[in-house]
Amino acid sequence: MSATADRVARAALCRLGEPGDPRLTGLVAEVGAPLVHDRLLIETDERGLASDVAQRLSALDPVSDLRRAAERGIRFVVPGDEEWPARLGDLDRAEPLAGRGGAPLGLWVRGPLHLAETVERAVAVVGSRSATSYGGGVAGEIGATLAKQGHTVVSGAAFGIDQSAHRGALAMRGPTVAVLACGVDRAYPSAHRQLLDYIADTGLVVSELAPGCAPTKLRFLSRNRIIAALCGGTVVVEAAIRSGALNTASWALRLNRTLMGVPGPVTSAPSAGVHQLIRARDALLVTNGEEVLELVAPAGEHTLVEPRGPERPHDRLSLLDQQVLDAVPVEQAAPPVSIARTAGIALPRVRDALARLVAAGLVENGADERHRLRRGD
Amino acid sequence: MSATADRVARAALCRLGEPGDPRLTGLVAEVGAPLVHDRLLIETDERGLASDVAQRLSALDPVSDLRRAAERGIRFVVPGDEEWPARLGDLDRAEPLAGRGGAPLGLWVRGPLHLAETVERAVAVVGSRSATSYGGGVAGEIGATLAKQGHTVVSGAAFGIDQSAHRGALAMRGPTVAVLACGVDRAYPSAHRQLLDYIADTGLVVSELAPGCAPTKLRFLSRNRIIAALCGGTVVVEAAIRSGALNTASWALRLNRTLMGVPGPVTSAPSAGVHQLIRARDALLVTNGEEVLELVAPAGEHTLVEPRGPERPHDRLSLLDQQVLDAVPVEQAAPPVSIARTAGIALPRVRDALARLVAAGLVENGADERHRLRRGD
Repeated sequence: MSATADRVARAALCRLGEPGDPRLTGLVAEVGAPLVHDRLLIETDERGLASDVAQRLSALDPVSDLRRAAERGIRFVVPGDEEWPARLGDLDRAEPLAGRGGAPLGLWVRGPLHLAETVERAVAVVGSRSATSYGGGVAGEIGATLAKQGHTVVSGAAFGIDQSAHRGALAMRGPTVAVLACGVDRAYPSAHRQLLDYIADTGLVVSELAPGCAPTKLRFLSRNRIIAALCGGTVVVEAAIRSGALNTASWALRLNRTLMGVPGPVTSAPSAGVHQLIRARDALLVTNGEEVLELVAPAGEHTLVEPRGPERPHDRLSLLDQQVLDAVPVEQAAPPVSIARTAGIALPRVRDALARLVAAGLVENGADERHRLRRGD
Repeated sequence: MSATADRVARAALCRLGEPGDPRLTGLVAEVGAPLVHDRLLIETDERGLASDVAQRLSALDPVSDLRRAAERGIRFVVPGDEEWPARLGDLDRAEPLAGRGGAPLGLWVRGPLHLAETVERAVAVVGSRSATSYGGGVAGEIGATLAKQGHTVVSGAAFGIDQSAHRGALAMRGPTVAVLACGVDRAYPSAHRQLLDYIADTGLVVSELAPGCAPTKLRFLSRNRIIAALCGGTVVVEAAIRSGALNTASWALRLNRTLMGVPGPVTSAPSAGVHQLIRARDALLVTNGEEVLELVAPAGEHTLVEPRGPERPHDRLSLLDQQVLDAVPVEQAAPPVSIARTAGIALPRVRDALARLVAAGLVENGADERHRLRRGD
């Protein structure tokens, strides 16, 4: 089986059925594309007629397909190519989801980067098309932070969260990959033609659908598995209860990728799906790009120090000194004996404590040994 | 050891040191209050002088204390009393936290309810004093939902989240318990005098501090352990990175109570502490009172059906029918042969699928067998 025969067979098969049809991807993974292609070509139904599959296969011209694509700067990357991301093989070992599954037969790719290298450190940032400005802002921040730290942002080029994530990465001149549910020569949504062209100029636009193919609902589901599989982790920024982003999240879990979710107000419908992922599906809560990096970067590369409030002088006091400090008046200065009474501690120990508190700058010692809290600390 | 001697000894000891001093609570748990009391009374230091503890103890008059409290409608509930919540015993088995620990020596109680029965089903709802209106709204909703379902809302009567939680419960005429860091005869904050009086009329106001005692920072930390211990679970609604509510959360974890957190915008400082609890301390994310109930109610009593979007007719379609439906035009009706071409499926199967889709009301079959999507579904 020559590499070329395999590529041509895959190009033909990928125009044949729907992408991610597990019957087809499973068969190809098992016996190889050329054999599947040749068998299907001679398939007949019980009446001896060529099956619909055979009819369609014989009408295809994959060699011209590949040539025309190449003329337009589109390459067809298949398993065995140096550029093929090994990670996609995980799809062949995972159960289908919502009727879709298996590694793509190949990926049509537009853009100057090396696909396998580009996704070596890649995070998917996905979410609702009807994102809020809050969600868009967080997606943009995460995209930018990932890019700044040399990680690739993978998303679906849709309205809302997807575009914010891509744009965040682009703003940092970082690599970003748009995975489409249509041919890489098409712009969907059409309002994102410029964005997609810009990504194709600097990053990668990728699809398992042959050039010219239109997006359909099923193709979005199929596409989502590729977004999840290309990346070490997936962040869902906003997703309503019925968002397609939750399908990407399910794929991330199924592929043992790190699944992360950004919370939002519990009163915000676009955050409800994310909250459900964290509540019921063990997605990890993240609040910014640094936290994402901590979870997806190789161990030790990004270790976060948990945020703490500023340390204040009395944080390090002994319990005794804290108790005495609590008993020192704010306004009207008081003598040690009165402070000792308030604190319920014997006078000699109170005197010692007051001396330490004065030395620490927390207490003022005024006339007649009267003490009060020092202002403005 | 008579019940009265024990109660009197506890009343004396609770005025002696700071509440939740683990040296005192530990000793009492081990050998009993009367013995600790009598030993401390004769304690001398190395110079043969009465220790500060002994000096203070001999100056106390716990019998009058108890009588005066009773005259003002305040009872002192101690272990062994029918009203004593057995749960508080968990504090004696837990390690101290921030220098505080152990079961309270007793609880001073104001209000008409039976303490043990009232907290049998109780949830702590706590959070930031500087809550946002978002946080206050969520705390109120959770308080109301818990109360409506017969659960007691326990909190600290502070500004912000605490008061919203109490008020939510009160609005449903549900039981609510305020645990104070000062005597139950005092109002802290003073702006909450009416609220506290109302809680004392219909619910319970509780403190381990004897009447008249003032609140201090240490006493708030000490109080938090009682809030956590009285309840089966603790919900943190809003808490900045350095909020006292996080101390209550730590107690809930230490006592193996269910710890829950309400998320908010990642851009909101008062939610940062909660997000950290969920991220790093395994707090469970909850978004409303029903979800809290599901986690704290006895198994099977509150089982939530996870929210789903409304089911739409095509959710139940076979994959084939979905593929055909995807290929049916929205505007310009098309004949089966053209739909078959778009779908990549043989004509006879497309005809069958179209018939099913028409029967399901999803597709219109117009002139010349031309099909298009049915509007307004």
